Amino acid sequence: MTVNKFIMRSALFTFFLLFFFSISSAQYQINTERVIQNLETLKTFGINDEGGNDRVAYSDHELDARAYVIKRLNDLGVEVQIDAAGNISAIRKGRKGLSKVVAFGSHIDAVPNGGHYDGQVGSMAALEVMQTLVEQKIETNHDFELLIFTNEEGGVFGSRALAGKIDEGTLKVKTSSGYTNAEGVNRLGGDSATIFSVKRSKEDLHAFIELHIEQGSNLYDQGIDVGVVEGIVGLKWWDVVVRGFANHAGTTPMNKRKDAMLASAEFILSVNRIAKSIEGNQVATVGRIQALPGAPNVIPGEVRMSLEIRDLSSDRIKEVYEAIVSSAKAIEEKYQTTFEFAPIDATSPPAMMDDRIRKVISDQAKSLGYTQLSLPSGAGHDAQDMAMIGPTGMIFIPSYEGISHSPLEYSTPEDIANGTQLLLNSLLALDKMTKL
Amino acid sequence: MTVNKFIMRSALFTFFLLFFFSISSAQYQINTERVIQNLETLKTFGINDEGGNDRVAYSDHELDARAYVIKRLNDLGVEVQIDAAGNISAIRKGRKGLSKVVAFGSHIDAVPNGGHYDGQVGSMAALEVMQTLVEQKIETNHDFELLIFTNEEGGVFGSRALAGKIDEGTLKVKTSSGYTNAEGVNRLGGDSATIFSVKRSKEDLHAFIELHIEQGSNLYDQGIDVGVVEGIVGLKWWDVVVRGFANHAGTTPMNKRKDAMLASAEFILSVNRIAKSIEGNQVATVGRIQALPGAPNVIPGEVRMSLEIRDLSSDRIKEVYEAIVSSAKAIEEKYQTTFEFAPIDATSPPAMMDDRIRKVISDQAKSLGYTQLSLPSGAGHDAQDMAMIGPTGMIFIPSYEGISHSPLEYSTPEDIANGTQLLLNSLLALDKMTKL
Repeated sequence: MTVNKFIMRSALFTFFLLFFFSISSAQYQINTERVIQNLETLKTFGINDEGGNDRVAYSDHELDARAYVIKRLNDLGVEVQIDAAGNISAIRKGRKGLSKVVAFGSHIDAVPNGGHYDGQVGSMAALEVMQTLVEQKIETNHDFELLIFTNEEGGVFGSRALAGKIDEGTLKVKTSSGYTNAEGVNRLGGDSATIFSVKRSKEDLHAFIELHIEQGSNLYDQGIDVGVVEGIVGLKWWDVVVRGFANHAGTTPMNKRKDAMLASAEFILSVNRIAKSIEGNQVATVGRIQALPGAPNVIPGEVRMSLEIRDLSSDRIKEVYEAIVSSAKAIEEKYQTTFEFAPIDATSPPAMMDDRIRKVISDQAKSLGYTQLSLPSGAGHDAQDMAMIGPTGMIFIPSYEGISHSPLEYSTPEDIANGTQLLLNSLLALDKMTKL
Repeated sequence: MTVNKFIMRSALFTFFLLFFFSISSAQYQINTERVIQNLETLKTFGINDEGGNDRVAYSDHELDARAYVIKRLNDLGVEVQIDAAGNISAIRKGRKGLSKVVAFGSHIDAVPNGGHYDGQVGSMAALEVMQTLVEQKIETNHDFELLIFTNEEGGVFGSRALAGKIDEGTLKVKTSSGYTNAEGVNRLGGDSATIFSVKRSKEDLHAFIELHIEQGSNLYDQGIDVGVVEGIVGLKWWDVVVRGFANHAGTTPMNKRKDAMLASAEFILSVNRIAKSIEGNQVATVGRIQALPGAPNVIPGEVRMSLEIRDLSSDRIKEVYEAIVSSAKAIEEKYQTTFEFAPIDATSPPAMMDDRIRKVISDQAKSLGYTQLSLPSGAGHDAQDMAMIGPTGMIFIPSYEGISHSPLEYSTPEDIANGTQLLLNSLLALDKMTKL
């Protein structure tokens, strides 16, 4: 080996060393095996014979899973509390005694026969963040608060309680478990009597980030590592009733019919055509339909359908809806039917993610060498309610084939690790910012 | 008055006399007020608060109504029997001791919350025929048999029993009353144990005519007095299952969907288009639809529909069905879905009315000065099963706006009287024919 060669090799070694530090030594590493193992353990609470997840909110399976998570948090020596809404809160004190917290978390309840990644990846990532903070004795300016929200799948209940958006009616809603929210919250160790006291203000929150699987296929299809969420789309629902005239399917000639089913069929196609005809990511769906009287030998006199429109912009939702209503007017005449649209009280406005947090996440992803995509969330999340309290962001990781709310839900260990690392780095970066 | 004038007046008188005899004296007159009064009395058995008819087969209301009809028949001194299938049979002997009967009748059961004319007009007309025969001492060659059929609305049960087309399965079918056919028949005084013995052969039947309301609007719209039925259309049913892929309605972009609802909407429109594109009276209907999972926020992964096709020609039904299946193939590709068609065991072949009986009815209607229309029956009737036994015909009278199976069902007293008179005249004309 010549001196020249040695120098070259040394230079190469130093270069690699610097390169390595630039992507890892400047930051704390999460434990990939541990987060995956925690996720695997979590699966055991409620897994059914089909491989699906029966851990609906307030069920015994959820109680078992929560006990497991609480035990892990207690073992870390952080302050664990169940608030009146049943949310699990674990606080690790910062060094500055600041009143605002840096918060992070998701949910561990599932839809009936759901999957093992929706909410659960974000929850186990949050646990891993807390474990890394404690284990690596990372000092933070702010208190760091892990949140596991109550009954996300049944209407983002826990985070809505924090945003002060629940009422007596919400408490009486019967959930998939068979319990009402009030009964369920009390099962979790909450207190339905004092539940409205959990409401938080913007004085309480420095920043909140939720990591979640995309539940869509944008990242998966394009092979992108992480998504930086622009906002959570708003959602509006309507009941659509089409009225024609029920008549004998044998004795009423084709040209004498006032068939509510035919008018509805043309309506369903027009909803799809209109949603696609406008540039943008808006979606419109007819998911439910019933024909009355509903017999093979009777021309339907009435058809009831659901209509859902989602977009990041309320104006866009309005634009699509108005085009659909206008199209229905033409269908009314063509089939001698009438259309009636009644809004359903299950709508939520678009929730924009905080621009500064989006930039922090994007910058951190870049530092980590991850490919990234800025995209809206078509699904609702606890982050939409946290955004009403304070600056909020969301990180997405790829979902296998975009499948969600299904036993087939899946994300790779690598993607989960990437997301967890990005969550930690982003939270630490936000912690360093005095004001958002 | 001159002699000439006298002769002219006499000639005129004679002319009028002859004209009068030609349209009335050669025939016996039914009693319009009586048949209308009997129909009004029949209404009282099961009329509900909405004016609808709750007299479903085997119900207490039907038992009361049958007791009323049987009493009226017994008062006439004819031989009244309940056969093993619960059919009411009333025989008035002819003078020739012939083995074949001239039969006529209909049913008095109704669909739930049905009307007071479907079946009931034909039954009270049949009673009026029998009353006229007795009261006016009309001698007939054949025995005249009045039939009130069991459970027409639940699958033309009584007439199917006479045609030998029922089996153990039919007896177990639960009906609208809550009773099975077997239980119901026993309630009516029939005998489910010996029910198969009621089967009749063509040696038993000289001719059968059923008078019925049209249940369509051909006669009503065109202001025509009576319809001469060409035949009763055949009917085929299929279950159609469309499979796509259920997915999140918020996270799945419009161009990534395999929406079973969209494919179904296009299918429903194609069924209608195909049925109308072929010349003829065929009808095709989608009356029932269900989307799965059926939530406003889930793209339907599966849709189940009914498909019904009716026509007087089995070949035409096949032609329409094949065009529909071929159209579904194109829809499959367009929406990345699959279609599956499964025939349902509730089909009936077309039943042609006897040409000679059609001519008799038509000739008699002409003699009575009624306007007439030859037309198919889109609805099923007891006559379709009687046609399997022997020569059968049907007379239609106008239905108000074509409405049927509804409390709004209505036919005018004049139309009912016309139909009853035509029924009597046609039966008497057939009685004179030695062989059909």
